[in-house]
Amino acid sequence: MTDTADTAIPTSSYDTALQRSDAIWAKIQDDPAGLRMLTGDRPTGALHIGHYFGSLRNRVRLQEAGVESWVLVADYQVITDREVLGDIRGSVRELLTDYLAVGIDPERATIFTHSAVPALNQLMLPFLSLVTQPELERNPTVKAELAAAGKSAMGGLLLTYPVHQAADILFCHGNLVPVGKDQLPHIEQTRVIARRFNERYAGGEQIFAEPDALLSEAPTILGLDGAAKMSKSLGNTVMLRMSEDETAKKIKKAKTDADRQITYDPEGRPEVANLLTIASQCTGRSPEDIAEEIGDKGAGTLKVMTAEVLNEHLAPIRARRAELEKDPGALFEILRAGNARANEVAEQTLARVREVMGMIY
Amino acid sequence: MTDTADTAIPTSSYDTALQRSDAIWAKIQDDPAGLRMLTGDRPTGALHIGHYFGSLRNRVRLQEAGVESWVLVADYQVITDREVLGDIRGSVRELLTDYLAVGIDPERATIFTHSAVPALNQLMLPFLSLVTQPELERNPTVKAELAAAGKSAMGGLLLTYPVHQAADILFCHGNLVPVGKDQLPHIEQTRVIARRFNERYAGGEQIFAEPDALLSEAPTILGLDGAAKMSKSLGNTVMLRMSEDETAKKIKKAKTDADRQITYDPEGRPEVANLLTIASQCTGRSPEDIAEEIGDKGAGTLKVMTAEVLNEHLAPIRARRAELEKDPGALFEILRAGNARANEVAEQTLARVREVMGMIY
Repeated sequence: MTDTADTAIPTSSYDTALQRSDAIWAKIQDDPAGLRMLTGDRPTGALHIGHYFGSLRNRVRLQEAGVESWVLVADYQVITDREVLGDIRGSVRELLTDYLAVGIDPERATIFTHSAVPALNQLMLPFLSLVTQPELERNPTVKAELAAAGKSAMGGLLLTYPVHQAADILFCHGNLVPVGKDQLPHIEQTRVIARRFNERYAGGEQIFAEPDALLSEAPTILGLDGAAKMSKSLGNTVMLRMSEDETAKKIKKAKTDADRQITYDPEGRPEVANLLTIASQCTGRSPEDIAEEIGDKGAGTLKVMTAEVLNEHLAPIRARRAELEKDPGALFEILRAGNARANEVAEQTLARVREVMGMIY
Repeated sequence: MTDTADTAIPTSSYDTALQRSDAIWAKIQDDPAGLRMLTGDRPTGALHIGHYFGSLRNRVRLQEAGVESWVLVADYQVITDREVLGDIRGSVRELLTDYLAVGIDPERATIFTHSAVPALNQLMLPFLSLVTQPELERNPTVKAELAAAGKSAMGGLLLTYPVHQAADILFCHGNLVPVGKDQLPHIEQTRVIARRFNERYAGGEQIFAEPDALLSEAPTILGLDGAAKMSKSLGNTVMLRMSEDETAKKIKKAKTDADRQITYDPEGRPEVANLLTIASQCTGRSPEDIAEEIGDKGAGTLKVMTAEVLNEHLAPIRARRAELEKDPGALFEILRAGNARANEVAEQTLARVREVMGMIY
């Protein structure tokens, strides 16, 4: 159905992926027609500024640039590494609220959940036949997630989730997946599945195009305690839904160091650099420039300044969020419309898959 | 939705399964209400007398006894251990023809295909979260199938197919699965999945009843060349669709031994015993009785007699088969009706699963 400019170059290495990404960014600027992006999140509750600066904002930019957007609320993925679903409906509602607050536009983006699209999930079956257990086991991201979950035995859903992700991307003929470096193996797995499907079951006809990873320059925001990532469970986050006061308090308590001279040194002074990154993201100024302005006024001044520009930047998002929270019914209405659209497309894709496999009875 | 008499006894051992089976056979005689059987086959073409005497005939008996029947044409399972689907529609048509010819009654049995029931396939997702990779790897039947396929790397679909089978059984709330001893691990896996689903996602409510394996006394028919199983690819079969002449020729060429005194000795003289078993299945007489009648008249006489009673037994089946072959459109009409029924039930089950998991948006 859709085609990227050129999918002949293997993206197995980071460097190649980076080159492909640059070419795609150029195409996005030039002519985004035909580009379809698949993104998504596991619904585990409200989002924080790590999600926002690291990923959501980039998605909104792509949407604004004219890339067709599909946004997946990956509800089944919540149980890949934990046994408890919790208040999944509440988590989905929070996620929807954040999506719309940051500017994902349901008029241009299809927002949908795994659990509501059976024809997408059915693609797992033929796709599972295209991968081997050793390939599944080799996936470094799956291994890392197992380790992070602190479990010894790999769950069946965790082991196979790159195949499910291939179904997510391919059912809607997504050809662009904004990812971080650690997710490149997933995209490579999807490319392999697309290629093998075409060869094995479609006599070489291109039923599925191999999608491209789109690496972005979006930063990784550290936890305010210096941890490698913001994480709600560690309490080291600024949530999008926080008030200005809460935000200022959180930033005030952020870990820094005793050197009053502020410099941008991500390696040597990661915590200070993290605040500078946040301030830079909010203002569009370089972190070095901000550091120079603060000079020897110390971390306290940096924190006040960061909280101020962050609150300023988030103000319109928070205002929209407050509006959206008043009418959760409308949010779920948007999700139901997205699910209807996703089902329509998934059923078309599945019908074509059945047809080329000869399963027409 | 449905309940068996008692699912408290673990069926992990063969002996326990045998005891449970005896109790279920008694219940079938006494009052089959509430019993729902799930059976099925991989559609790889027309069936032979090994399928018929070993399994199909037993299913028809259960149907006639009043057990509700669900018969699965497991089309996705064709690609668990091979890369080529071949003429899948033709294979499904042959299977349907054999099903109806032997007496599976579409008025009382729901005949359906995997590929047409997305809501069934979606159950794979939550069910995969309930098993671990070591559990999947331990399944001896999966290991044996990998070895039989002559492959070194386990495919993703082969590894996970016991989970898919759990979805087959549980989507329609099947509580009875006629199996051979080698399939007991699959049923045990389904029981574990049902139990864990209820505990983990339904707060202990019994959404899925644990199904029982039903072991039968149906014999295993060896290949006519003495191989452990009839197999079309080995050419050692009598197909249900063969003519009387072809059947007689096949039986005439069957491997036997030089001892003219015919005796029923499955261990010492498996090939002769196999012909006696076939003749016994056709006549209802014991194999020992038939052996005694033939006495020292030799294998030639045994073969003539076996071919005769086999052709006689299969005559009405073959007559129906010939009729059914004239109208493949009607066969697929039956399949479509079965698929519609399966979809209706699968969607009900999935709706309930979504509900207890809280995935109602």
